[in-house]
Amino acid sequence: MERVKTGISGLDEMLNGGIPCGRHVALYGGPGSGKTSICFEFLYQGAKMGENGLYITLEETSDDILENMKSTFPLLSEAGQMIEDKKLEIVKPDKLDLEDVATLLEDRITSNGIKRAVIDSATMIRLSFKSEIEYRQTLFEFLSLLRNLDVTTITTVEATSSRKEDMRYDIEHFVMDGIINLYNLDREDRRVRALEIFKMRGTDHSRDLVPFKVTPSGIKVYVGEKVF
Amino acid sequence: MERVKTGISGLDEMLNGGIPCGRHVALYGGPGSGKTSICFEFLYQGAKMGENGLYITLEETSDDILENMKSTFPLLSEAGQMIEDKKLEIVKPDKLDLEDVATLLEDRITSNGIKRAVIDSATMIRLSFKSEIEYRQTLFEFLSLLRNLDVTTITTVEATSSRKEDMRYDIEHFVMDGIINLYNLDREDRRVRALEIFKMRGTDHSRDLVPFKVTPSGIKVYVGEKVF
Amino acid sequence: MERVKTGISGLDEMLNGGIPCGRHVALYGGPGSGKTSICFEFLYQGAKMGENGLYITLEETSDDILENMKSTFPLLSEAGQMIEDKKLEIVKPDKLDLEDVATLLEDRITSNGIKRAVIDSATMIRLSFKSEIEYRQTLFEFLSLLRNLDVTTITTVEATSSRKEDMRYDIEHFVMDGIINLYNLDREDRRVRALEIFKMRGTDHSRDLVPFKVTPSGIKVYVGEKVF
Amino acid sequence: MERVKTGISGLDEMLNGGIPCGRHVALYGGPGSGKTSICFEFLYQGAKMGENGLYITLEETSDDILENMKSTFPLLSEAGQMIEDKKLEIVKPDKLDLEDVATLLEDRITSNGIKRAVIDSATMIRLSFKSEIEYRQTLFEFLSLLRNLDVTTITTVEATSSRKEDMRYDIEHFVMDGIINLYNLDREDRRVRALEIFKMRGTDHSRDLVPFKVTPSGIKVYVGEKVF
Amino acid sequence: MERVKTGISGLDEMLNGGIPCGRHVALYGGPGSGKTSICFEFLYQGAKMGENGLYITLEETSDDILENMKSTFPLLSEAGQMIEDKKLEIVKPDKLDLEDVATLLEDRITSNGIKRAVIDSATMIRLSFKSEIEYRQTLFEFLSLLRNLDVTTITTVEATSSRKEDMRYDIEHFVMDGIINLYNLDREDRRVRALEIFKMRGTDHSRDLVPFKVTPSGIKVYVGEKVF
Amino acid sequence: MERVKTGISGLDEMLNGGIPCGRHVALYGGPGSGKTSICFEFLYQGAKMGENGLYITLEETSDDILENMKSTFPLLSEAGQMIEDKKLEIVKPDKLDLEDVATLLEDRITSNGIKRAVIDSATMIRLSFKSEIEYRQTLFEFLSLLRNLDVTTITTVEATSSRKEDMRYDIEHFVMDGIINLYNLDREDRRVRALEIFKMRGTDHSRDLVPFKVTPSGIKVYVGEKVF
Repeated sequence: MERVKTGISGLDEMLNGGIPCGRHVALYGGPGSGKTSICFEFLYQGAKMGENGLYITLEETSDDILENMKSTFPLLSEAGQMIEDKKLEIVKPDKLDLEDVATLLEDRITSNGIKRAVIDSATMIRLSFKSEIEYRQTLFEFLSLLRNLDVTTITTVEATSSRKEDMRYDIEHFVMDGIINLYNLDREDRRVRALEIFKMRGTDHSRDLVPFKVTPSGIKVYVGEKVF
Repeated sequence: MERVKTGISGLDEMLNGGIPCGRHVALYGGPGSGKTSICFEFLYQGAKMGENGLYITLEETSDDILENMKSTFPLLSEAGQMIEDKKLEIVKPDKLDLEDVATLLEDRITSNGIKRAVIDSATMIRLSFKSEIEYRQTLFEFLSLLRNLDVTTITTVEATSSRKEDMRYDIEHFVMDGIINLYNLDREDRRVRALEIFKMRGTDHSRDLVPFKVTPSGIKVYVGEKVF
Repeated sequence: MERVKTGISGLDEMLNGGIPCGRHVALYGGPGSGKTSICFEFLYQGAKMGENGLYITLEETSDDILENMKSTFPLLSEAGQMIEDKKLEIVKPDKLDLEDVATLLEDRITSNGIKRAVIDSATMIRLSFKSEIEYRQTLFEFLSLLRNLDVTTITTVEATSSRKEDMRYDIEHFVMDGIINLYNLDREDRRVRALEIFKMRGTDHSRDLVPFKVTPSGIKVYVGEKVF
Repeated sequence: MERVKTGISGLDEMLNGGIPCGRHVALYGGPGSGKTSICFEFLYQGAKMGENGLYITLEETSDDILENMKSTFPLLSEAGQMIEDKKLEIVKPDKLDLEDVATLLEDRITSNGIKRAVIDSATMIRLSFKSEIEYRQTLFEFLSLLRNLDVTTITTVEATSSRKEDMRYDIEHFVMDGIINLYNLDREDRRVRALEIFKMRGTDHSRDLVPFKVTPSGIKVYVGEKVF
Repeated sequence: MERVKTGISGLDEMLNGGIPCGRHVALYGGPGSGKTSICFEFLYQGAKMGENGLYITLEETSDDILENMKSTFPLLSEAGQMIEDKKLEIVKPDKLDLEDVATLLEDRITSNGIKRAVIDSATMIRLSFKSEIEYRQTLFEFLSLLRNLDVTTITTVEATSSRKEDMRYDIEHFVMDGIINLYNLDREDRRVRALEIFKMRGTDHSRDLVPFKVTPSGIKVYVGEKVF
Repeated sequence: MERVKTGISGLDEMLNGGIPCGRHVALYGGPGSGKTSICFEFLYQGAKMGENGLYITLEETSDDILENMKSTFPLLSEAGQMIEDKKLEIVKPDKLDLEDVATLLEDRITSNGIKRAVIDSATMIRLSFKSEIEYRQTLFEFLSLLRNLDVTTITTVEATSSRKEDMRYDIEHFVMDGIINLYNLDREDRRVRALEIFKMRGTDHSRDLVPFKVTPSGIKVYVGEKVF
């Protein structure tokens, strides 16, 4: 099986080598849980390995994303050059519409050989739907379109709580190929970041809850360390 | 009493020999809880024992299901041949409609001697109903139709939480002949898969919560081992 | 006071001799909690004592009920003969309508001297009502009709959780003469069945939570044993 | 201050002598919590002390109430005679309407010198209102009417849970002069009845949670005994 | 800073001397939590110190309030005389309308030099609003009007639970200058009254949870004693 | 990176030097949690350091805010002079409208060189929106406008509970650059104020829960002290 290495320290080990090629993964977490950082590094590391990446932002502007990432990851110093070389593109579509997102993706794959993409966030798309089934079908069709393209994606989904006890499965959890949950756990006197691979179709994977940190040189996932 | 052996390691023991023939069982679980894997192996093991099986998928395509199962179960190596020989069929109906599903089932039983079937998932059907009673009656009539056919079925139902405390009984729990609950239990620093046979009309059965794993050569249910 | 012996091992002891004659009892429990089994044995034991019984099923067919009960209770071997002799009748009305149920009951009492009846389930009736008060009044009028007939009934009600903490009182709890709660308690690594007599107008009764089992020769209620 | 002795063993002690004259008390509890029994004994003991009483039942028939109470309290042997002598009346109005209830009360006070009355239950009245404020105002006006009559009342209110943690204050709690809460507490392996005087305008009162029992000779409130 | 002494034993100490002059305080509590008693003593003690007070009741009649307070506080023996001397007025407006309440307040300030007022309760006002924002704005404008008058007020707000865990902030909590929470805490076998000053703009204050009692001679707040 | 020093004792240390310049931070807390005090001191300390500040109040009047702050912080004695010198402006717009707020901000930046601003509160704005997505988009566009202005802002958001367990993420949590949570923690017999920096785009920050106090000379954040 072909795999897409995330290049994120520790995460590929948890994934038994990386995300299976062509899979579409949901990254589920609250505000400040590190969703954007993980997405960005996934593309950055891809670009370093020669795989072009596309970041589709549905709320913040491209400039905001880049500026934030530069200050979050001062040591991922090639980001500016990658953007210039179109190895890493950050694009904000005009409309909140999955068809537009698909067209954009298809276009960049054809014209720029994109191999990895990020969609940030599914929640922005969902807000515009009135019925659950309509959203579910649209998301499913969108994923079907994607399966005909040679691309691996991570889509962020906003969680409404940072407690594990409060997690309820939602449409994205059932429809997407994989789920990575990010937690901002409340350890009484402090917050601790942790992640787990909750589901990943087509590969075995770690089932541990693992602490991680966002450092200037990238995400560090501390495989083998305990949170509790 | 005649029984349909699931062929899944440990599960038949919990069922005192297998699912009573002609019964219709709900497989209830969250995303990544192993629903598709159990359903698939149920048909695979049937095909090996000479009983043709039909997988009716209401969301994913037949190709997606097969591809996922091949990578989940690399050692269930006869799957491809079984598909070719029509011992195992994976079909996606055009519409989300229980009548169509019934017609499809009836047709395959007549033309291909299907003995086992999987319907994945009842949740997709339910989403299209507006009132609870309408769905319940339609599901009940569907099961009545099935009882005239010589077939044993497993139908998946999506749970919205992986915590035992949050489980609430729903329409499928009351209408179906049996319920197998799949859990993705939160053991602080890791997730542990477990199942229980919650209800099975017409037979005595284990009432234990039992851990299980999805391995390359099939599901392993660890009867006699404790989760807590 | 006259009492109707349920004939179920241990239960009559908890009831100080049986259900007071002419009372209407709700049997409240989740799926797989043993509602149908207790109802059936109540009628079976009555028939053995010479009291004809009627099982009114509002969802499953008469054949389904009988078939299930034969496999659940292989040692209650007179069931088939009782059905033939009309000492035990299982009937499914055409419509979900309490008036029809009352007419049916009245007819069988007149023509067949029915002394005990089961209505399975009130939940099916309730689903067809739009307002709470309409259902409550209809159920109350139905019970008033019943009080003019010389019959003792058990009516099943579907619970939506098997946890004692989640139990909320509903219309049936207030309107019926008695309530027997069935639990499928979650004891971490296994499920344990237990029952309690929660309310029984017109008689003192046990207030203990008592484990029970469904065995081939009938229900066994283990009076004096503890669940916790 | 004048007080109405309930005559119930232990309860008057908790009330510092009885309910202040002319007050209107809510008796709040789930099914099987003893609401009807306490109401009935309140009137029975009044009749014994020479104060005529009226039981207004809004759901069950007068005959049902009397029959139940006779079997609940076989040793309160004067009940039948009291009914005959009109020292204790049980009446069911034709409609669920507070105005009718007020007219009935007024009539019986004038014609029969009623001093104590029971209204069973406020919940039946409430079910017929669409808006909260309309019910609250109607109930308040009803109580204002009552204040011009020389009568002390107990009104039952149905609770939807028997757990203390689940109690939420409702309209009756704020509007009525007093609240007595009845609990059917879940002590793991058994149910224990307990009551507390939660509010009583115009008098000091016990603030303890006290166990009670329904015995053939009346309610026994075990003042000074602990539940936990 | 000028302060209005409540005159309630212990409470002024918790308030560092009293409520800052011209502030508008919410008194939040369930039924039987002592809201009316605290409000009444606030006015009584004011009248004793020469500050006229006005009790605006929006549900109970003036007579009910006075009668209840006389039996609650038999040793606050000057109440009747104060009412006669118009040092303490209890008024029930014809309508549930904040404008009417404001007009009433203004009139009494002008004609009778009122310095303290009680509004019982905001919940009655709120029930007549359909939208949250409309109520919030009306309440805010009402408070703005009040700020132009030389008066300090306490407004009661009904809580729907007596458990600290269930408290949710509501419109009054944000809009009012101060919040005093009253609890009727469930200490297993008894209820214990306690209060806390949750918010008080313009002054430092105790942040302790303190038990209190309603005694014949007034409220006693036991500063320095622990509840837990 | 340029930072805006809050000047609040301990807070800048937690922020690794201050809020990154031009960022927009949400201050999330219940009533009485200290939101206004922190906002005010943020502007006061800025004015002392030569950076003009603007307090936009959407509910209370400017006079109320100032008066409250003078009594809360008697030792921040330059406040009056700052207001006079327009180093610190408190303004209440006529309407609850984000466009008006933006125009106001822009105007003050041009005419008075404002560097810091407070918007109190987002909740007031939100109440006037009917749909979630409309509010989210409007808030997002507002923040986009702000990013073109050279200003750092704190916006208050009202929490509905003071318990950490009850916190749910809302629109502001996802849209704003940073979140500071204020808690009024329930430590059984007393309330303890604490804060945490939950999210701050563009800088590393403390992840501890830290107690704080509002003292006459300003907020004191006790970095290094434990709450639990």
